[in-house]
Amino acid sequence: MSLEQLKQFSTCEIADALLKLGQRPWGGYIPDIEMWSPTYCEGDTRIVGPAFTVKMVHKEDKTSPTPTEHFADAAESGSIIVISAPSDVKNAVWGGLMSARAKAKGARGVVIDGRVRDLNEHRQMLFPVFAKSHSTLPQNAFVRPSEIQVPITLSAATVNPGDIIVADLDGVICIPKDMVEQVIINCEKYVAIDDQCMKALQAGHSVKETFAKYRGQ
Amino acid sequence: MSLEQLKQFSTCEIADALLKLGQRPWGGYIPDIEMWSPTYCEGDTRIVGPAFTVKMVHKEDKTSPTPTEHFADAAESGSIIVISAPSDVKNAVWGGLMSARAKAKGARGVVIDGRVRDLNEHRQMLFPVFAKSHSTLPQNAFVRPSEIQVPITLSAATVNPGDIIVADLDGVICIPKDMVEQVIINCEKYVAIDDQCMKALQAGHSVKETFAKYRGQ
Amino acid sequence: MSLEQLKQFSTCEIADALLKLGQRPWGGYIPDIEMWSPTYCEGDTRIVGPAFTVKMVHKEDKTSPTPTEHFADAAESGSIIVISAPSDVKNAVWGGLMSARAKAKGARGVVIDGRVRDLNEHRQMLFPVFAKSHSTLPQNAFVRPSEIQVPITLSAATVNPGDIIVADLDGVICIPKDMVEQVIINCEKYVAIDDQCMKALQAGHSVKETFAKYRGQ
Repeated sequence: MSLEQLKQFSTCEIADALLKLGQRPWGGYIPDIEMWSPTYCEGDTRIVGPAFTVKMVHKEDKTSPTPTEHFADAAESGSIIVISAPSDVKNAVWGGLMSARAKAKGARGVVIDGRVRDLNEHRQMLFPVFAKSHSTLPQNAFVRPSEIQVPITLSAATVNPGDIIVADLDGVICIPKDMVEQVIINCEKYVAIDDQCMKALQAGHSVKETFAKYRGQ
Repeated sequence: MSLEQLKQFSTCEIADALLKLGQRPWGGYIPDIEMWSPTYCEGDTRIVGPAFTVKMVHKEDKTSPTPTEHFADAAESGSIIVISAPSDVKNAVWGGLMSARAKAKGARGVVIDGRVRDLNEHRQMLFPVFAKSHSTLPQNAFVRPSEIQVPITLSAATVNPGDIIVADLDGVICIPKDMVEQVIINCEKYVAIDDQCMKALQAGHSVKETFAKYRGQ
Repeated sequence: MSLEQLKQFSTCEIADALLKLGQRPWGGYIPDIEMWSPTYCEGDTRIVGPAFTVKMVHKEDKTSPTPTEHFADAAESGSIIVISAPSDVKNAVWGGLMSARAKAKGARGVVIDGRVRDLNEHRQMLFPVFAKSHSTLPQNAFVRPSEIQVPITLSAATVNPGDIIVADLDGVICIPKDMVEQVIINCEKYVAIDDQCMKALQAGHSVKETFAKYRGQ
């Protein structure tokens, strides 16, 4: 498995592959998350790496477990930190200090099913942040980390520790770790076909003849 | 009717005219659609052209009609493709290959009551795309084209084939084709008045005296 | 009280201070409002000033009061205009002419619990606008100003006339006017601590030891 090979494919191309390989409901897609850093909704940034998962719960929740280590200290080099958070809060669960620590640990970026703050700090550090929205409010007054490196759910998508996350301008994808080889093989085949389709369409050929010729549809 | 004349007016100015002319509920405004290409929520791009309508339905819907031709092959030169899609899906209904074909056909842009993917491809082609959101997921696994050039509904707005679409940074407007002449006449009158108001306000005059003097309020 | 002192602190730092000082539920945070001008969701713009409040009601509401003066004429120099509007409308409650008047009056910006239009006009004037979304539709066909300089509610946050508004990329904060001195004192203390934390984390120290050393946690 080579993450460098995977990185040449867009999240759209990988979603196509995962759907062809039967991944449901949404081909590993984690919806409604935008790129907020290094730039907002534009640019060529793409991050690829194994998920380092963090589950947040309401601060008032006294029954859920408490981690022994700070999640940012525990983050592994080369990983992408993926955070699930309660959906009914208005606070951020990630800020500038966390990006500083994550970057020092060698993490490649963070994906948040929630809000981020200190937007200019992440951008100055060029640390990739994907999130649903922004906020001015800190994490620690509203939610708390509960578990690290456990399966978490973001919208309808489950992310297991070590699953491969790919995130770019179009969105965030989670590839089950045992499907990565198949995804690469599938992408290599179909991306070449789509490149031929793009050239044919730009040359003025119809969708009908182009897809018949290259996709066999 | 001259679309070049219409193009000098912003969607806000045209919405004002349509409201004065009695268009309800929202003066032809199709809400909650953003400019995603050639740039996101900034720039001077404005597209004007007759609507070429496409209605998408859930893929599982076996009773709705099926078109005989691919909708992008059918798109007419100078038109703006307008797509309605089920609101409960997370997939895109437009991608880079479709922009390539639409551009080759001479379409001026696309307005989507749904999601778009391959964002950087549209931007590289400088093809205007207005949509509600983005996704990594393809159309064909989730929804399918059902009818082409039929009346479609986007939020509370009905778009008929051949209605004139105007889209810019502020939003998307649909002008019933038989109202275009009146809209142009109305815009010419009121935009001149608003220009006078702007100059007066920038010169420090009050809203009260300015609107009394130029708008007769 | 010095607004210049306050302006050196980000909305995140001020929210931290307000939470420490007991402001609930959200430390003065007014959620889900974005910077739309002078740039969209990027840049260093920050505005600070006393709130000049405007309450809009549905146009059909004949029982609520009617102001004697146009709200933009009434706006005070140095203030930030804060507008509450019904949440079920699709129209803008602020446009280019209003920014022209507000700027001429010396207002520092506008915060809207609703929509804005004429986006490029505000940007050309470099007039700061914070809003929930955009529209093409004018205010006067759908809602009307009812009261000026009364307490208004935006999401769960109450804004009183003269409360201090701070708005930047991360969001919008309302500081009760009698808490400004405490906020400044609190920010000066904790921002210095956070600067030390940032340096320590960037130098590779753990969150655990850093927060223990500088925050006493």
